[in-house]
Amino acid sequence: MTQKPPIGRDTRLCMSLSARPGNYGSRFHNRLYELTGLDYVYKSFSTTDLPAAIGGIRALGVRGCAISMPFKEAVISLIDDLAPSAAAIDSVNTIVNDDGRLTGHNTDYGAVRTLIADIDPATPFVLRGSGGMAKAVAAAFRDAGFAHGTIVARNEEAGRGLAALYGFAWRGEAEGAAPILVNVTPLGMTGADAERLAFPAAMIERAAIAFDVVQYPPETPFLRATRAAGARVITGTEVATLQALEQFVLYTGVRPTDAQVDEAAAFARG
Amino acid sequence: MTQKPPIGRDTRLCMSLSARPGNYGSRFHNRLYELTGLDYVYKSFSTTDLPAAIGGIRALGVRGCAISMPFKEAVISLIDDLAPSAAAIDSVNTIVNDDGRLTGHNTDYGAVRTLIADIDPATPFVLRGSGGMAKAVAAAFRDAGFAHGTIVARNEEAGRGLAALYGFAWRGEAEGAAPILVNVTPLGMTGADAERLAFPAAMIERAAIAFDVVQYPPETPFLRATRAAGARVITGTEVATLQALEQFVLYTGVRPTDAQVDEAAAFARG
Repeated sequence: MTQKPPIGRDTRLCMSLSARPGNYGSRFHNRLYELTGLDYVYKSFSTTDLPAAIGGIRALGVRGCAISMPFKEAVISLIDDLAPSAAAIDSVNTIVNDDGRLTGHNTDYGAVRTLIADIDPATPFVLRGSGGMAKAVAAAFRDAGFAHGTIVARNEEAGRGLAALYGFAWRGEAEGAAPILVNVTPLGMTGADAERLAFPAAMIERAAIAFDVVQYPPETPFLRATRAAGARVITGTEVATLQALEQFVLYTGVRPTDAQVDEAAAFARG
Repeated sequence: MTQKPPIGRDTRLCMSLSARPGNYGSRFHNRLYELTGLDYVYKSFSTTDLPAAIGGIRALGVRGCAISMPFKEAVISLIDDLAPSAAAIDSVNTIVNDDGRLTGHNTDYGAVRTLIADIDPATPFVLRGSGGMAKAVAAAFRDAGFAHGTIVARNEEAGRGLAALYGFAWRGEAEGAAPILVNVTPLGMTGADAERLAFPAAMIERAAIAFDVVQYPPETPFLRATRAAGARVITGTEVATLQALEQFVLYTGVRPTDAQVDEAAAFARG
């Protein structure tokens, strides 16, 4: 294992910007820098002044920046280019800084594409949510060939808009049945909604695949219930790890081994 | 020894801004964070856009920033307050960020005051240089009571200006003799001027105290020659360590032990 040098003048900074920073990104990236011996350091930030924060990234030569809620769309007007992954959904979760030129990517989209690649796209799905991440997930399903989808969102305007964008149906409430259930809301997330099921028990019982993008806890009530009912589950941790790995590759140009990724992901889950 | 936690959401960033970042600050501060168990990380930066860099410090909540050449005066208009150490010489080498309010300090001034505290202020000195650091050193001598000083600077306007500011004489060339010789120019610094003596051999032979603010190499030709001639020397490393320690205290509110400082300084010299 290459020895990572102490932080010095040549060390490159990567960072994240979000309203409520977590620890996952810092732990995942910093652990991978140690395992690969790369001279980088990663730090999460919050801000109340997005233009000044992006200006700082440019002025300080920060190499890359993860963009989380609520900045994924607002950041677009502050950067120079959009990669196809971000242009496809008008949502940026990753900025790469090449000598002051900032390009926006969306690694969530690619991560979801990878995680659903082996599912038959003829299978109907119901996706609950209508925010930026819901857009990335819906676009990934559409681009993977899924044609029978329903977007569930209480916010009719947002829900109908997202459904129309990708040719899916819309419903205000989760009801009926579908083999694939996808939760892209905070339901089940640590905090106020921790105990809430993302879908009614009747839908969960009839599902074959349950996909939850919630990252904390690693197993939401929704996933626990579907797993108990014998369904296959795809977790928020899998999305988080895959998308963070793609960020790592964009920032450093280095693709770590599967063993290194597994070790960093385990460390990040802590 | 307290275990420093891995970098995470609560880790605070301190940084430096200079045209040509070195490794000393990163190594010194990061080592002291390890030794004291404080949840901080330190990283050096360069920039070609000082206002955006300072805006980034504010927007990202960077806790503190060392300011080096050539930004020590330009930064004043971009911050909110000046501490007495910086106001005295209109030069900022340290910014402390208290919830978005930026205060400028000058820890070079205090470090020089400490290093010359035991010298009889009746002793005449010759100081070579006329830049921002020369101002900090001249102010420290003046405030310590030294009245018999000569500023040597080829740039007549800058030299006469600095001399007049603190009531000292000015000369265009280093000549004559004085018990205390102080170099605040790049003469003797690693690079193009590495072999150059800051003062003529005849002056060096007659000096009792030689003070060089050049940090690399730790012993310049000037200091080597004066040490060989039996003079007491004060090194740029001593200035760098003392001023960095004061920055550490300003940023963290924690004063490390002498043993911790010695270990961090030895590591930083690396």
